[in-house]
Amino acid sequence: MAAIRNVETMSATERLDFAEMAKGHLIQPWPVAGEIGAEARGGIIAGDGIYVTDIEGRRLIDGPAGMWCTNVGHGCEPIARTLYEQAMTLSYNSPWYTASEPSVRLSKRLAAHAPGDLDHVFYTTGGSSAVETALRFMQFSNNVFGRPTKKRIVARQGGYHGSTYLSASLNGRPRDHDWMDSAGDLVVKLSCPNPFRRPAGQSVEAFCDMLVEEFSTTIETLGAETIGAFVAEPIMASGGVIVPPPGYLTRMRELCRENDILFIADEVVTAFGRLGNIFASKEVFGIEPDLITFAKGVTSGYFPLGGAMISAALLARLRQSNHADAMFAHGLTYSSHPIGCAVAETNLDLLEGGLLAHARDIAPYFQAQLKTLEDLPLVGEVRGLGLMACVECVADRESNNPLALDLEVGKRIDAHCQQLGLLVRPLIHMCVMSPPLTISRPQIDDLVSILRQGIALTQDELVREGLWKG
Amino acid sequence: MAAIRNVETMSATERLDFAEMAKGHLIQPWPVAGEIGAEARGGIIAGDGIYVTDIEGRRLIDGPAGMWCTNVGHGCEPIARTLYEQAMTLSYNSPWYTASEPSVRLSKRLAAHAPGDLDHVFYTTGGSSAVETALRFMQFSNNVFGRPTKKRIVARQGGYHGSTYLSASLNGRPRDHDWMDSAGDLVVKLSCPNPFRRPAGQSVEAFCDMLVEEFSTTIETLGAETIGAFVAEPIMASGGVIVPPPGYLTRMRELCRENDILFIADEVVTAFGRLGNIFASKEVFGIEPDLITFAKGVTSGYFPLGGAMISAALLARLRQSNHADAMFAHGLTYSSHPIGCAVAETNLDLLEGGLLAHARDIAPYFQAQLKTLEDLPLVGEVRGLGLMACVECVADRESNNPLALDLEVGKRIDAHCQQLGLLVRPLIHMCVMSPPLTISRPQIDDLVSILRQGIALTQDELVREGLWKG
Repeated sequence: MAAIRNVETMSATERLDFAEMAKGHLIQPWPVAGEIGAEARGGIIAGDGIYVTDIEGRRLIDGPAGMWCTNVGHGCEPIARTLYEQAMTLSYNSPWYTASEPSVRLSKRLAAHAPGDLDHVFYTTGGSSAVETALRFMQFSNNVFGRPTKKRIVARQGGYHGSTYLSASLNGRPRDHDWMDSAGDLVVKLSCPNPFRRPAGQSVEAFCDMLVEEFSTTIETLGAETIGAFVAEPIMASGGVIVPPPGYLTRMRELCRENDILFIADEVVTAFGRLGNIFASKEVFGIEPDLITFAKGVTSGYFPLGGAMISAALLARLRQSNHADAMFAHGLTYSSHPIGCAVAETNLDLLEGGLLAHARDIAPYFQAQLKTLEDLPLVGEVRGLGLMACVECVADRESNNPLALDLEVGKRIDAHCQQLGLLVRPLIHMCVMSPPLTISRPQIDDLVSILRQGIALTQDELVREGLWKG
Repeated sequence: MAAIRNVETMSATERLDFAEMAKGHLIQPWPVAGEIGAEARGGIIAGDGIYVTDIEGRRLIDGPAGMWCTNVGHGCEPIARTLYEQAMTLSYNSPWYTASEPSVRLSKRLAAHAPGDLDHVFYTTGGSSAVETALRFMQFSNNVFGRPTKKRIVARQGGYHGSTYLSASLNGRPRDHDWMDSAGDLVVKLSCPNPFRRPAGQSVEAFCDMLVEEFSTTIETLGAETIGAFVAEPIMASGGVIVPPPGYLTRMRELCRENDILFIADEVVTAFGRLGNIFASKEVFGIEPDLITFAKGVTSGYFPLGGAMISAALLARLRQSNHADAMFAHGLTYSSHPIGCAVAETNLDLLEGGLLAHARDIAPYFQAQLKTLEDLPLVGEVRGLGLMACVECVADRESNNPLALDLEVGKRIDAHCQQLGLLVRPLIHMCVMSPPLTISRPQIDDLVSILRQGIALTQDELVREGLWKG
């Protein structure tokens, strides 16, 4: 079997081998053409709780919880045991013909947590395939309902929804599209609901009115009969933890209802405890979507699982259509995976058994401590909700003008923080923090203290290099 | 933690609960509108070796190995142990910033097995995302190379490549598209290379010439400058185990080379032992593709993992382009998952350690025994290679005319076989067999014997119902 490391460090020779193997054989996400197939990213070899250990033996706080996913923390024994036991009981079942116990049991539990009448689940292997499922379901439904032109998808600048051709077409962040193809004609983008970047002099309320008006005008201009779905992360995650203005989501949801447009809440990041609840749509934002997509936290990253919760009303409408034989020709080999669903059940046990309560309890302290970083001159805003936050750096505190993108300030801060014991998730000029939900007050103090030092060192460095006025 | 069943049967009440939970909360792949969100498929609760156990306590041979994936069989302890140990060592790593040991080590091992210069891997969560990766890589490359119109994808009738909007657009089986949308303008379909369905009176050699000529004419008509890739399963799997005519794949590959069209071998089914080798492209068919996509057997279905092997020459050409900063904005949260890669390593150990040799050794017996079913009047052809085979039923042995699709003969055979101890994979009028590679001669005898009885009972039933002349 695979040689699994029990010691936490590597010899110098092993580190060299590691880098050579990575360069020679592994392609990681988002490479640039000049390095593709010839780069080695740093190595991580172990994890425990909120910490990971790199190949040089440094123990680092996992600031982003992997990629917004390691909600219960690393090295969680109940989950490891579930992996073993379900693999020995039933390792795989073809969902085309039969169903496994963990998949039906988990579905019932998720339905009990989901808002409104979202009582059915279609399982996938992650967020991209969850979004594909929701979008293909919208296309299928509108074909069955005899309105084949009602297919446009409305998304937003700054959003992130996945990395397949169609789901990626919804993305609206810088660099997502420069060299990639997209199904552009199917997608319409609205403005990013980022209060920090609202027009100068505008109130947050007026900004919200403007955003809602933009959607309303878009519907009028294009015609509701051409729009199938509105897709939105309740809080934009990879776009920089954008918490929308109060009332924005409920008003957008209402516009969807009035125009028979499916509201798809992409809760890949916000669900499973990140905001203190299993799903955030209703409990945090007061909305009942038509579909919710989820992934990441559902298994705390231990197993690729995602899915779409679908409203009972929508399913009933399909069953009552005149096309009983119309086939929703969609599904993955790993849909309803018994091991993934068993892991998700154990994960849910942990969340329900105290971790949600802990996340809700500690979130205000987490936000308050991070907020203290706003006294640093490089920091324009610290924002967030629950256990997700973003530190946005600016060129100038007066204007909040953005820094030049190629300064890659986030990467500089990350490099300093790694020396000091913290992994950051750099996003160009921003640092995102979304640690495991198990984080304690003293660990939050450590995280914030290291981040402060990392930003201060970056400030010094930028001034020294003449790249920032200070 | 999740309640994992240790006993192999359910009480009557539990079976009822199971069905109610499934109907009420779970949506499985490929439902029809009339049943969506209100159906319960049969339950499977345990697996060991080549067997699974259903909720009524029946032990069944897993004829399709799940969904062409459970290559090492169910209940494989070394894999279960790897799941546990890697989860306790490092359960997740964000591939955006860092790399894990299992991912770099596995990459080196896969590169050693892959044909030609296919020495780099990009990991995904299954076949659909592997195909998306290959196609988006083609689009990206041609953008970087300054030929943005070279993007059409050539696929084939009868092929199956996934269940995302773009990968599904390549599918060419009946029912795949009736009610679904696709990126039709990006895809061109060639004829299915099925010798059994070649024009009456035509030799297999002439049929092959015709197929190659069709591709050649397509390139001439559309222009090579508009075609980015040709995507083909070396043996079409879900299309009915279509083994192409001798020489077909090498000639199609040559046409691709002459026209700078990427040849993408979709080995999601054929790799990892199904045909006796880790990859089949070169060893079995004598071709060196530009990319190979894989999934399923790479982890024997224990963990959602897939990927694309990419040629070194292609990567070098990208690195030497004039756009060093061009970003391949592609990647999944679960790319290079440390647990998935560790499982794949253990799986590879088992294949290299004897299972490949066993699969090669036993395949002729498997094919020969299944071939004996051709004496049944309902059976038109038994075909296959390695440990994949298809029994195709026909209306009439003289003409080989197909049966009416709505007879669903495959489902009828499956129902009889399940009573007798065998799970079949019904494909309309076909039964596909692709058991775990661990299958023994006596187990093959059992499988074939049950299948024979199931087909005979179906014959009787069809005659009795006046649906078939007998």
